[in-house]
Amino acid sequence: MHYCCFLNKRKTNTLKNCGFWSKVLIHIHQNVRSIKQLEYAVLARRANQIQKELSQGVRKPYKELIDVCWGDPHSMDVKPLTFVRQVLAACVYPELMSSHKLPLDVRQRAQWLLGRCDGGSVGSYLAPTGIPEIVQRMSESIRSRDGGVPCNPDNIFISPGSQWSLTNIIQVLVNNEAPLRTGILTPVPCHVTTIMSIKSLGAAVIPYFLSEEHGWALQVEELQRALESAKGGCNPVALYVINPGNPAGYVQSRKSIQEVIQFASEKRLFLLADEVYQDCVYGKNSEFVSYKRVLAEMGPPFSDTVELASFHSVSKGFMGECGLRGGYVELVNLDPNVVKYIFNLICKDSTTPVLAHFAMDLMMNPPRPGDPSYPLYNQVRNNMLVQNVKTAHEVVNSLPGFSCQPVEGGAFVFPRVFLPPRAIQKAKEEGMQPDTFYCMRLLEEMGVLVSPGCEYGQKEGTYHIRFCIMASQDIIDQVLKRLTTFHTKFMKDFS
Amino acid sequence: MHYCCFLNKRKTNTLKNCGFWSKVLIHIHQNVRSIKQLEYAVLARRANQIQKELSQGVRKPYKELIDVCWGDPHSMDVKPLTFVRQVLAACVYPELMSSHKLPLDVRQRAQWLLGRCDGGSVGSYLAPTGIPEIVQRMSESIRSRDGGVPCNPDNIFISPGSQWSLTNIIQVLVNNEAPLRTGILTPVPCHVTTIMSIKSLGAAVIPYFLSEEHGWALQVEELQRALESAKGGCNPVALYVINPGNPAGYVQSRKSIQEVIQFASEKRLFLLADEVYQDCVYGKNSEFVSYKRVLAEMGPPFSDTVELASFHSVSKGFMGECGLRGGYVELVNLDPNVVKYIFNLICKDSTTPVLAHFAMDLMMNPPRPGDPSYPLYNQVRNNMLVQNVKTAHEVVNSLPGFSCQPVEGGAFVFPRVFLPPRAIQKAKEEGMQPDTFYCMRLLEEMGVLVSPGCEYGQKEGTYHIRFCIMASQDIIDQVLKRLTTFHTKFMKDFS
Repeated sequence: MHYCCFLNKRKTNTLKNCGFWSKVLIHIHQNVRSIKQLEYAVLARRANQIQKELSQGVRKPYKELIDVCWGDPHSMDVKPLTFVRQVLAACVYPELMSSHKLPLDVRQRAQWLLGRCDGGSVGSYLAPTGIPEIVQRMSESIRSRDGGVPCNPDNIFISPGSQWSLTNIIQVLVNNEAPLRTGILTPVPCHVTTIMSIKSLGAAVIPYFLSEEHGWALQVEELQRALESAKGGCNPVALYVINPGNPAGYVQSRKSIQEVIQFASEKRLFLLADEVYQDCVYGKNSEFVSYKRVLAEMGPPFSDTVELASFHSVSKGFMGECGLRGGYVELVNLDPNVVKYIFNLICKDSTTPVLAHFAMDLMMNPPRPGDPSYPLYNQVRNNMLVQNVKTAHEVVNSLPGFSCQPVEGGAFVFPRVFLPPRAIQKAKEEGMQPDTFYCMRLLEEMGVLVSPGCEYGQKEGTYHIRFCIMASQDIIDQVLKRLTTFHTKFMKDFS
Repeated sequence: MHYCCFLNKRKTNTLKNCGFWSKVLIHIHQNVRSIKQLEYAVLARRANQIQKELSQGVRKPYKELIDVCWGDPHSMDVKPLTFVRQVLAACVYPELMSSHKLPLDVRQRAQWLLGRCDGGSVGSYLAPTGIPEIVQRMSESIRSRDGGVPCNPDNIFISPGSQWSLTNIIQVLVNNEAPLRTGILTPVPCHVTTIMSIKSLGAAVIPYFLSEEHGWALQVEELQRALESAKGGCNPVALYVINPGNPAGYVQSRKSIQEVIQFASEKRLFLLADEVYQDCVYGKNSEFVSYKRVLAEMGPPFSDTVELASFHSVSKGFMGECGLRGGYVELVNLDPNVVKYIFNLICKDSTTPVLAHFAMDLMMNPPRPGDPSYPLYNQVRNNMLVQNVKTAHEVVNSLPGFSCQPVEGGAFVFPRVFLPPRAIQKAKEEGMQPDTFYCMRLLEEMGVLVSPGCEYGQKEGTYHIRFCIMASQDIIDQVLKRLTTFHTKFMKDFS
């Protein structure tokens, strides 16, 4: 109503302005609609209320709410890496370097990084291309990751987070003037941010299902089916893959990646490879192999024609530095003019802070054996999540009605939950998706916030929950304990 | 040529993709054109060459090139504020707080700031609305700046730099579907970034000239003339003002601001107030008064109808922390629904790093008398630029052929230079604007890079140069010395 007054106020003055405000009006309606569609929003609202109730002293069976919906490790008591924070602190306040309290390699790295900034300060502007020596070192690190496959620093762009680059590249791929909508093949399940980006840019999501029975394998026949199903409805131009997976914690094998590349090549699809969890692999027989490496190793015609964008981030790796806002994209096989154009989009407004560039250097060039910071860094990095994953997987799988595929990588557990028909019926009566209903109950009764599978997409008639294992062991133990108690009661209540 | 191959490659495959790539092609051409139009680009290219020549040992009359084109204080040896950097370092590496080497108020502030983050870490995600307690404190600080005029925290949005918010708001104002282009009244001279934002969003710049003879005063008759001149050509919806000025260092009086507001009200123009230099006022009789304060003090109907967006930044103030990427906008008199919509645009992708939020808190709530950090903070803050401004103004004004209006605020000196007809003739022969020619000569002969007035707009037949005074005293002294030597010779050569 308020808004209408506003419109009227404008209208009396000039009709042209009215056109402008009505543009805004349409967007507002669209936004409200798309937010309402998010199942998670219902849970988040209730979680906020509960938080308020707890702080007002309302008695509940729990004292604290635990939110394990997001991949936000530091918020869940995962400690930052000492080496990373020492270097960044010394860069922020270089006077610290005169004290010998900081290890030598910390001081040396800080010195080197500051030497790359005008005036030796993290307060100076960067060139939009970033710090050339850092990008050069990143390219060397990528080359070494990929067993020597060349990496051209001109194709690497640093941005405030990987999602930023992804959104900008999707924007380039989308042609809103074409008679058919641009289509992007997207996995099911898939984390929500990318889905929202694709939709908000006016493109169509073409879902392809990962095979849960086969450890969430990506099967080419399914890609084929999805592409066929899109015929006439939209114009598919890109294939989005997530490896290691999110929410499903698979790690693709070399062979699987080869098949995907072959498919992308045949169908002339641009490959968007979300590889932000590349450093988070737990499966004993799993190994992260980059799309770029496989592409190069396949040789021509693939290696010089298939267009690829690979994404990484300081938020999503084992560093978990979400608050610093840093990510990068590497472009492969793109025309140099298009690369330049994309660069302008990604680096416009030079929004990536200097410290995010530094964090990128620290992530990609960690301490080496022999460096003073190496022992601690290595110990923390290796032990950080393996135990959590193991415990979570075991406990969840031990609960009747739960079935969890192996968690080989990533940050999440995404088990299937076989809900009793009476629970499904009850959910319908309450106007909720069955797994949202399950999550809501878990939230109400145990104060644990996890997200429902319907948020990420799942085969009809199947239900899942997702929660993050990048948390302190204490938190994970608490979550599993509360989940076990709740689940046992829930299954009994609805059996 | 390369690009055409690319296009053809696509064309053979699918015609729809071709549409997509040709969209990119058009943009690339536009970009190249607009970059070529920048006079500064010619100078920057030559400066890069000179830098290379110097590093290769080519002998020149100078050993180092000095670039004073940009407002980037730390790159020009201005030291960061100790209080700011100590707090930020302690936030990055909280172990520092256990040592008593950091002043008590530093440790207390760091503790408080970290207490506002999930898990007490700057590595956690922030809610898109930012940290509520910080925004609340910002609103209190704005209220106190404005002599008690209320400030609603819901109308303040933190973004990665002020230009980011400005661009997003212009984007909302622009209606590309209307038959007439959206017009924005813009001062002459005006710094380049905003002009480029306006143009790249498809809007028209409606230039209004500041009156150099009157100390770069903003005169309402000129606004009137500019608006008249736009009639039929575009649809003016907003008026952009910069106070304190950039490149011209004026500070608007209360009366001048009142007149502008009255004009905006009459013509129903949205006011975009770029107030990023609000803390940089040097004129003895000048005082910064915010547009918001004047608007409130004018009372109804102005105070509750004129729509205003006011911008500030941690880059452009006396902190000069450009590399942290933090700014904010405050919206006044906008409909709450439109505010929400703008909020979504500005805060999308949550790109503002946590440390930028912290820096904002430090800028707006500096140490107070009695705090351990106050004496040093206050001394540095007050002395920082006053001497530079004084020296620069005096020296430039003492050179024959130069005339510099008082520099009351901001970060730049923008003197007029009366070029001899023979110099103008020579510039024409070399295909350059006369002041670009002057700057090029200064660069070649003395290794000083300043920017030409034509870059910012100026009355026909007048010429200017701009350089930044946010630099160490040494640098400013060097710049003035080299400029004096050069100018004397230049005037002789072309007289």
